[in-house]
Amino acid sequence: MAFFITFEGIEGCGKSTQVGLLAQRLTARQTPVLTTREPGGCPIANAIRQILLNPANTALVPRAELLLYAAARAQHVAEVVVPALQQGSIVICDRFTDATLAYQGFGRGLDLDLIHTLNQVATGGVMPDLTLLLDMPPTEGLKRAIQRNTESALNHEERFEMESLDFHEKVRSGYLQLASQDARFRIIDAQGDIATVADRINRTVDEFTATRKAIP
Amino acid sequence: MAFFITFEGIEGCGKSTQVGLLAQRLTARQTPVLTTREPGGCPIANAIRQILLNPANTALVPRAELLLYAAARAQHVAEVVVPALQQGSIVICDRFTDATLAYQGFGRGLDLDLIHTLNQVATGGVMPDLTLLLDMPPTEGLKRAIQRNTESALNHEERFEMESLDFHEKVRSGYLQLASQDARFRIIDAQGDIATVADRINRTVDEFTATRKAIP
Repeated sequence: MAFFITFEGIEGCGKSTQVGLLAQRLTARQTPVLTTREPGGCPIANAIRQILLNPANTALVPRAELLLYAAARAQHVAEVVVPALQQGSIVICDRFTDATLAYQGFGRGLDLDLIHTLNQVATGGVMPDLTLLLDMPPTEGLKRAIQRNTESALNHEERFEMESLDFHEKVRSGYLQLASQDARFRIIDAQGDIATVADRINRTVDEFTATRKAIP
Repeated sequence: MAFFITFEGIEGCGKSTQVGLLAQRLTARQTPVLTTREPGGCPIANAIRQILLNPANTALVPRAELLLYAAARAQHVAEVVVPALQQGSIVICDRFTDATLAYQGFGRGLDLDLIHTLNQVATGGVMPDLTLLLDMPPTEGLKRAIQRNTESALNHEERFEMESLDFHEKVRSGYLQLASQDARFRIIDAQGDIATVADRINRTVDEFTATRKAIP
């Protein structure tokens, strides 16, 4: 019953919270669940992440940045995701290939074909079985994200929160466009309280697992 | 009169020494010369190099390694090579795209098409005008390289010196195969003393520059 779920969405959409809740729920069913995140998820990918996030690295060019994200992903997929799937776990990953398309491609305008190529190289063709896109208007998400960051230590996402609202609108519509092109996506309305959104996610995942079980 | 020269060859072939001598000679002609090397050549590429060379990173998978080399190259090309060429310098680089094909492709057996793709992504199409392949039998080169390493601090190349003679034979014949396929290559006999090899290189570079001047 191993499968690979990714969570995607703009900042403040509640991904991390919902990843944790879904993992709790699936674990309670006696299924081993591995939760992980990108960029990062293993020591080498974290070392690469340090280069990406080092504020001194202002000279980093977009092509090198894309290749570093791809390198971190290649290591994470080979070292973490694939072994866990092979051992029969459900793997839940907070951001994956679609995030690179949405942020670097649709958001920043880097070449989508190049990103597709690098995603393919990095994953070696390992793709999520199910991608949950937590959708909400950027005005709402950024309000939440900014509130969270003032309450806790600054994190990776802060860099993107500095971007304009226009940027986040592009990321959101990029995500929605990706979702319209691939059957593995489910769009989840991420507005509402945590329990309400968790209910929507649980129903969606239950439908998905029921369908998979039905396949002989 | 800006152009881009790369030096290639197996360990111990004398590349670094000859890069320095050629730079001296060209600088004496009042031509600005930039010498650089891969992997490395700028702070971000050096940070990536640290990940590649960290002995703790035994888990590094080949795909991630290739992507890291490509990321370092992308940064080095954009930050160092291209600006120097634009400012009219001759750029001499110790190892470039062909080294990845020879070592990771022909030597270790990684997919050559994948390496070609990543080289293309990393360089954005910037290619050497002239590539000097310093050719010698691996038995000879390794003898020199091991002697050098026992005399000085261990360096990057040491990792490859640990490989078998068979590996270095594959690298050499890979280089020769690349040279047979692309007119920018000149094969230099790297056996003999430093001055003799330098003479061969000087004659080759002079012929090359004379041809370039002849083009209207």
